[in-house]
Amino acid sequence: MRKLPDRVWKLPRHEDDEAAEEGIGRILALSDGVFAIAITLLTLEIAIPASTSDAGLPKALLELWPRYLAYVLSFVVIARFWVIHRLAFRLIARVDAALVWLNLLLLMFVAFLPFPTAVVGAHAGSPAAAVLYAISVCLTSTAWAACWWYASGRGKLLGPDVGRAQIRALRARSLSGPVFFALTLPIAVFAPYAAEILWFLAFPLARIVFAWFLTEEHEQPG
Amino acid sequence: MRKLPDRVWKLPRHEDDEAAEEGIGRILALSDGVFAIAITLLTLEIAIPASTSDAGLPKALLELWPRYLAYVLSFVVIARFWVIHRLAFRLIARVDAALVWLNLLLLMFVAFLPFPTAVVGAHAGSPAAAVLYAISVCLTSTAWAACWWYASGRGKLLGPDVGRAQIRALRARSLSGPVFFALTLPIAVFAPYAAEILWFLAFPLARIVFAWFLTEEHEQPG
Amino acid sequence: MRKLPDRVWKLPRHEDDEAAEEGIGRILALSDGVFAIAITLLTLEIAIPASTSDAGLPKALLELWPRYLAYVLSFVVIARFWVIHRLAFRLIARVDAALVWLNLLLLMFVAFLPFPTAVVGAHAGSPAAAVLYAISVCLTSTAWAACWWYASGRGKLLGPDVGRAQIRALRARSLSGPVFFALTLPIAVFAPYAAEILWFLAFPLARIVFAWFLTEEHEQPG
Amino acid sequence: MRKLPDRVWKLPRHEDDEAAEEGIGRILALSDGVFAIAITLLTLEIAIPASTSDAGLPKALLELWPRYLAYVLSFVVIARFWVIHRLAFRLIARVDAALVWLNLLLLMFVAFLPFPTAVVGAHAGSPAAAVLYAISVCLTSTAWAACWWYASGRGKLLGPDVGRAQIRALRARSLSGPVFFALTLPIAVFAPYAAEILWFLAFPLARIVFAWFLTEEHEQPG
Repeated sequence: MRKLPDRVWKLPRHEDDEAAEEGIGRILALSDGVFAIAITLLTLEIAIPASTSDAGLPKALLELWPRYLAYVLSFVVIARFWVIHRLAFRLIARVDAALVWLNLLLLMFVAFLPFPTAVVGAHAGSPAAAVLYAISVCLTSTAWAACWWYASGRGKLLGPDVGRAQIRALRARSLSGPVFFALTLPIAVFAPYAAEILWFLAFPLARIVFAWFLTEEHEQPG
Repeated sequence: MRKLPDRVWKLPRHEDDEAAEEGIGRILALSDGVFAIAITLLTLEIAIPASTSDAGLPKALLELWPRYLAYVLSFVVIARFWVIHRLAFRLIARVDAALVWLNLLLLMFVAFLPFPTAVVGAHAGSPAAAVLYAISVCLTSTAWAACWWYASGRGKLLGPDVGRAQIRALRARSLSGPVFFALTLPIAVFAPYAAEILWFLAFPLARIVFAWFLTEEHEQPG
Repeated sequence: MRKLPDRVWKLPRHEDDEAAEEGIGRILALSDGVFAIAITLLTLEIAIPASTSDAGLPKALLELWPRYLAYVLSFVVIARFWVIHRLAFRLIARVDAALVWLNLLLLMFVAFLPFPTAVVGAHAGSPAAAVLYAISVCLTSTAWAACWWYASGRGKLLGPDVGRAQIRALRARSLSGPVFFALTLPIAVFAPYAAEILWFLAFPLARIVFAWFLTEEHEQPG
Repeated sequence: MRKLPDRVWKLPRHEDDEAAEEGIGRILALSDGVFAIAITLLTLEIAIPASTSDAGLPKALLELWPRYLAYVLSFVVIARFWVIHRLAFRLIARVDAALVWLNLLLLMFVAFLPFPTAVVGAHAGSPAAAVLYAISVCLTSTAWAACWWYASGRGKLLGPDVGRAQIRALRARSLSGPVFFALTLPIAVFAPYAAEILWFLAFPLARIVFAWFLTEEHEQPG
């Protein structure tokens, strides 16, 4: 039997280099589509029971408050993934098959997030709901970290002008997500509400980590 | 402990300036996606009960009229946000992190609108439904006003050719939304149907405000 | 009181002329988004009852055949609107505010189509369902005809190279839709299944009308 | 009666040639939209019963495992269609009306896939569910094979630089899908779980077929 060549498991990189522009274009189009839909589908989880009477409507609307909070939380979480995705892909000059699939893995977890959001919205005080949410966001963050570490490391897919400080800062930032949500896992088990409050703080935390590493590098040459 | 630099809380603006083109491209792609989905999801709120018999179908279809009206109203409301978004972003030459997040805030409210639409469609005569709708659109308008005032003011993100009259006209127009929907709030409490009729008038009102300010400025140089 | 200028009711055309490229870009992005979502949402109307047992599954799947047919019919109907939209917008060189709103009117009807599709899928033999479907597609076709007649007529929005024969052929084609679906209305009342079969023929009919007019003009110079 | 010209059944190709760039742009926009939505709608099929109590939540979440698996399987299946679609359309330089409709046929089956996914998720061990899934993916693969064989064969729509080896490899790859899923049909009837495991292997299989043909050709000139 004929021996299969090594490149069975990877698409030829050269081909992607040539048409990198358009190749990235469709990846971003699919990604923006998935982000936009995942964000908008969150609304479908907010609904009043069909049996609600006009008289009972005010109370029914107010009792939905955990779903409003879950909507805002998940919107911010997904929006942050989009913001960092956009920031990082402006530094990425080429794509290869591995990055395409790592990006699809990220999108798989992003598209999944409306489900844990719905569960947290319906069972705000339940440890199981909080644990599911923490695990889901942790996996999404890990997929993003894999994207960025591959693109900036082994994949050598960045443009020539990207500084080492920026790469390191974005690497640290990409790790802050999985680490943070993994750390909130035990809190989610024993105090679901406390974990949910902590998640709202994830945004400023990542910002501080990002700035810290960016600064450190800038200070070295001085 | 090392002191964090000032820019922890804002992304470096320079970086965004360089690649403003493509940066705006993805913001518009995400925005168009969210607008398109929010508009299309409105249809999901129109449904006949699964138990409807063939004989009862005509009556069931006619009884859905408040949902048809709610669909048209919300389609026009969201379409107007898109039209003004498109008009304004043609004057915006650069984006910074603040505008990205203000735009995401706007999208969060736009993506939420299918929910109050569903509530108004199911409870057309209920003050609670009308109040929810008025508040939702008021918040969406406020988010848009914040986008435009920031971009045209402190953010200095407009292109060099944008006239002061146009900026002022769009500022007035962006305020007309929140003010108008806030004014209909008390009407929504006491006469929900009257408020719903008024909302259909929001479109010509904004047009008149826009033209008024554009004219005023044009007459001054003359 | 100061007199309002004439142009209160229309946006200044000049402004749109300048940046027509990008202006059209976002209109097409929104339109493609709405078409893509309307097409994909059709699937949501196909569902088996949650109470179906494993043993009853084959029967339940086969009994859904009217929904499969409704899915294919509506997919082809919406796809045809997209194909003609794409064909016509390649001839349109500029947009003004009127075309933007006529296009939004078209999208409003396109986004509505999943609802009549669901009704026809659930009540295939019901005259009410067939009438609703015929009216919905008739209104959608009319909105498209309005778009094209405005763009190619009063709006003067076409590029300089567009031949008169092509304009006339597309005008005839845009009218064939509303006329055809209006003619099937009485059939839908008395023989819903016959109307549904006729609708599958709408595609070749439009093609023949289109070619007829294109040919006629080409023969005149000869 | 006037004789209809031959080209009644096909749009004039010339017209498409001229503006091939932009024509392809909208086809890809619609395709990416449908892929993104089909992928994201898969999540809607994962839901816990509204009657689940907080105490019963952990069990309810764990019992959803067939739906998680169905989600991952269908995400990978649809993602693969997108990856090959993107790869092939980078070699396609022109589109004509036939390819537009073949591509729409592909999108019709892609947009349908959330339904068999939901059925497999709800009835993992049922032969009927597995057969429905195999048939759906088989039809989708066949539509894709038709796209590629037409574009690379009779349609003559490829760019001038595309090598014969690449065309043949992609042709073989496009056939591997329908053949593979058709072969799993009898397995789906008698051992649904075995078929579901096999489908997870479809990805590496296609990769091997692709590399095999690419290699064979490269060895001939040597």
